Amino acid sequence: MPYRAPVTDITFCLDHIVGFDRVQAASRFEDATSDVVQAILTEAGRICEEVLAPLNRAGDLHPARLENGVVRTSPGFAEGYRAIAEAGFVAISADPAHGGLGLPHTVTTAVNEMMGAACLSLELNPLMTQGQIEALEHHATDAIKDLYLPRLVSGDWCGTMNLTEPQAGSDVGALTTRAVPNGDGTYAVTGQKIYISWGDNDFAGNIVHLVLARLPDAPGGTKGISLFLVPKKIPDAQGNPGMANTLKVVSLEHKMGLHGSPTCVMQYDGAQGWLIGEENKGMAAMFTMMNNARLGVGVQGVSVAEAAYQHALAYALDRKQGRTEGPTGSIVDHADVRRMLIEMKAEIFAARALSLDLAVAIDLAKAGDAEAQARAAFLTPIAKAYGTEVGMKVADRGIQIHGGMGFIEETGAAQFARDVRVTAIYEGTNGIQAMDLVGRKLMDGGAAAFALLDEIEAAASGDDLGAMLTPVVAALRETTQDMLARDMADRFGGAVPFLMAFARVLGAQYHAKAAVTGDAARVSLAQYHLTRLLPEAHAMMAQARCGSGGLYDLSPDDLAA
Amino acid sequence: MPYRAPVTDITFCLDHIVGFDRVQAASRFEDATSDVVQAILTEAGRICEEVLAPLNRAGDLHPARLENGVVRTSPGFAEGYRAIAEAGFVAISADPAHGGLGLPHTVTTAVNEMMGAACLSLELNPLMTQGQIEALEHHATDAIKDLYLPRLVSGDWCGTMNLTEPQAGSDVGALTTRAVPNGDGTYAVTGQKIYISWGDNDFAGNIVHLVLARLPDAPGGTKGISLFLVPKKIPDAQGNPGMANTLKVVSLEHKMGLHGSPTCVMQYDGAQGWLIGEENKGMAAMFTMMNNARLGVGVQGVSVAEAAYQHALAYALDRKQGRTEGPTGSIVDHADVRRMLIEMKAEIFAARALSLDLAVAIDLAKAGDAEAQARAAFLTPIAKAYGTEVGMKVADRGIQIHGGMGFIEETGAAQFARDVRVTAIYEGTNGIQAMDLVGRKLMDGGAAAFALLDEIEAAASGDDLGAMLTPVVAALRETTQDMLARDMADRFGGAVPFLMAFARVLGAQYHAKAAVTGDAARVSLAQYHLTRLLPEAHAMMAQARCGSGGLYDLSPDDLAA
Repeated sequence: MPYRAPVTDITFCLDHIVGFDRVQAASRFEDATSDVVQAILTEAGRICEEVLAPLNRAGDLHPARLENGVVRTSPGFAEGYRAIAEAGFVAISADPAHGGLGLPHTVTTAVNEMMGAACLSLELNPLMTQGQIEALEHHATDAIKDLYLPRLVSGDWCGTMNLTEPQAGSDVGALTTRAVPNGDGTYAVTGQKIYISWGDNDFAGNIVHLVLARLPDAPGGTKGISLFLVPKKIPDAQGNPGMANTLKVVSLEHKMGLHGSPTCVMQYDGAQGWLIGEENKGMAAMFTMMNNARLGVGVQGVSVAEAAYQHALAYALDRKQGRTEGPTGSIVDHADVRRMLIEMKAEIFAARALSLDLAVAIDLAKAGDAEAQARAAFLTPIAKAYGTEVGMKVADRGIQIHGGMGFIEETGAAQFARDVRVTAIYEGTNGIQAMDLVGRKLMDGGAAAFALLDEIEAAASGDDLGAMLTPVVAALRETTQDMLARDMADRFGGAVPFLMAFARVLGAQYHAKAAVTGDAARVSLAQYHLTRLLPEAHAMMAQARCGSGGLYDLSPDDLAA
Repeated sequence: MPYRAPVTDITFCLDHIVGFDRVQAASRFEDATSDVVQAILTEAGRICEEVLAPLNRAGDLHPARLENGVVRTSPGFAEGYRAIAEAGFVAISADPAHGGLGLPHTVTTAVNEMMGAACLSLELNPLMTQGQIEALEHHATDAIKDLYLPRLVSGDWCGTMNLTEPQAGSDVGALTTRAVPNGDGTYAVTGQKIYISWGDNDFAGNIVHLVLARLPDAPGGTKGISLFLVPKKIPDAQGNPGMANTLKVVSLEHKMGLHGSPTCVMQYDGAQGWLIGEENKGMAAMFTMMNNARLGVGVQGVSVAEAAYQHALAYALDRKQGRTEGPTGSIVDHADVRRMLIEMKAEIFAARALSLDLAVAIDLAKAGDAEAQARAAFLTPIAKAYGTEVGMKVADRGIQIHGGMGFIEETGAAQFARDVRVTAIYEGTNGIQAMDLVGRKLMDGGAAAFALLDEIEAAASGDDLGAMLTPVVAALRETTQDMLARDMADRFGGAVPFLMAFARVLGAQYHAKAAVTGDAARVSLAQYHLTRLLPEAHAMMAQARCGSGGLYDLSPDDLAA
């Protein structure tokens, strides 16, 4: 089935759930009138439906490949990318000083969701560049900004992130790539990086790599990491791509999914690089990129979930099988198929609302609201982990709804599940997100968490659905207090269920808010969420309150027995 | 990591959890001494580790393919199959009158688990033949038995099941394949069947298809379906494979996983067939095959779960990354990795125990125990659905534990997840299993369900863990009563969560029993299950008690909105 961009539901979230009007009220975002936003969403929806969605299967069937050291992208991806770049979707939120639209990150988030639903493997490309633009805006010198940003913003050049090395994955501090001063203000970068998404392509004029590396005599661990900009082709005096830098793509990974996105092993052999930000402060600069990327990856989960849901619904509406209870004569009216579809829809709405809620907080923070800053920090790991879990769950249910056809690749249902699987892993595994939540994000003594719970409690006081939410919020408050009382090692054992419980409760809040509009379908969906899914929060909290208790009772031998 | 057959844990379940001694005490199974059983399990373990497990990846990389109408199997599969056949693993439970060992189905189940863990796509072949042998033993004439059973039992010939047609999947009654009497006691079978696992291969002397078809003037629906035996090559007077029958493999499916198993579209063009059982009673005969196949598929979930767990554990023990809390210096000592691994182990134990519990009930029923018959019928859909859900969940966690490596196909973690996905679909989707549970399996007014709950309650009275189980059992009793009070359409909306709640409680019971042995590791694993996983049963029951409430409030347009 062709993808249909959910502009209506996104707009509903902006208007009724996440208070986007507060962003629009900030002077920084005065250009983001509802007309402008609606025009962008509509145009993005059209491009996603007409140009990008038709590429999705081709990307899966014809993976990007390495030919004589050059990445050849999947059929149609160059044209798809061009459409994205020409529409300005790489730089919706980039600084107008360099050609960006300067619009809220919320708008970028909504457009990213639609691009990712249409063709996840291609969307990952502008997502990387968006993050790079933000990192350079914050940390680069004016000279670097003036040279690189206009070309990244226009989409002529693409950006990548280079963190991981074979021995340094989640533990970035273990990286060994070296950067040695050349004496002319540039550096010679040497090392191997792995899992570099879109490390090369055949449609950009240049590829700009942001590479984490160590200066000579840098301290060990994360405190000795610096960030370098290393272009594939070194710009000449006119800023045009010039001499080839000494870097190359060594190989592409053979992945479970996301075949259209070339995942590169990159080799840097004394490649010329420029320091971004301060020496040994590379992690801070990288986090600028990474935080938005985390929201971006959470949104990828929403993307795939929406696409997989639409795909499964179309099948369920078409497929006749057995006697049904409903009027259509198709399997959509079998109770268990309906149960799955409504669960998918309810989860998607919650995850979408959460991603937009976080995007709004990021925008308000940018506009100077300190409380929104703390809120954004707290919501980031939740949105990343929950969004991607929803992506996996919904894609899995999509297969199930197809029955035997779900296991056949031609159907397309399996591709969604294969593609989305990586989102729970990259940009920090969901386990890492949960550790971030119970660790760094509770360093404030729970202030951000309790502020959020206060807010949910206040919103929940109104009606029947709200009343269902109240006791769960109270239990989550207690669970948060319990978590705060534990030492870090103990918290980590309950981190993932704690995060998921928070996501469940946030989701229930969004649904309860949606029901307040009185729209019958939204009320029904909210009832589904609060009666069938919200009770899971108690089981999650029970797990969270176990902390690490008992987890070390089993020896490695016991585990292997 | 090489697969290590879990003979010790299987033996523990037989001895301490499922009361296999009751089977051994039946005169029918007097040959199944502990020495004999142990010898078979040990030999099966060895073959699985040494011969079958090395084939698993080759099957994925080099799928079975169709060449000039003949299926060419994956490299090494012919030798692997020969090892299975020569060891007698096709016919452990087959009647000794035709060369079988006549041993309990429990032994077959344990061996199947290990074969499926080593190489799921190959194990599916003998699983199909096992079911066919049982169907022929029950329903075929002596002439058919004498001709076919010795050859199937020896593994010289392989068997298949042909139910599905494009318009007749879960709704078998919609099938249209025709069988017209030839006047000589045989029938001309014409039609197309899809999703035929191992519909052909290049290592068996003959392929014997059991095909559901309609006689002329048969009633519509399932009451007009008859079962036919249709051999690929028609046996000559000596019983050797003779003239080719008029049937062919039209194409193979391109699947998400299980690449080593050829999934065929079969075309029958007036193929010569023999009626098995009575006219229009084909469904009954097919169910003989299908019930064991359902246990067999549930076991496939356990198989893949065990293999994926071992694979992930080996990685976690080897991979160094970040500071850890434990002594190994590898990621196995990160709390969240431990949490995932222990969850996997706890789920596997519960699913394995359930499959063996069901197998014991099947054996006791065969030995004449009517109560065991009802128990087996009730446990079948639970074992099928829960076993396969555990397979999917554990394989998914296995990917996650690998981090980025989990998404790279060379690692092998992804294959487990891709392979096992179909088990939740074939032999009746897990939704169909749940409908069977709340429908047919509650037709006794809940007698079998309550007998099971009584049993759990009695077993649960002993100690602390048992005390944790008691209130959940009480809640499940109430939920069962609630389910019984609903009409069928209403039950179906809560069927899947009801089934999963039952599986959770059964699993807790097995763990509580294991803890009674006092073994510290088993006590710890049981505590994990009862404190962290068992609370999920309440959320499942809350869903079950929603029935179909609200599921039809959303119109197709609402769902698509």
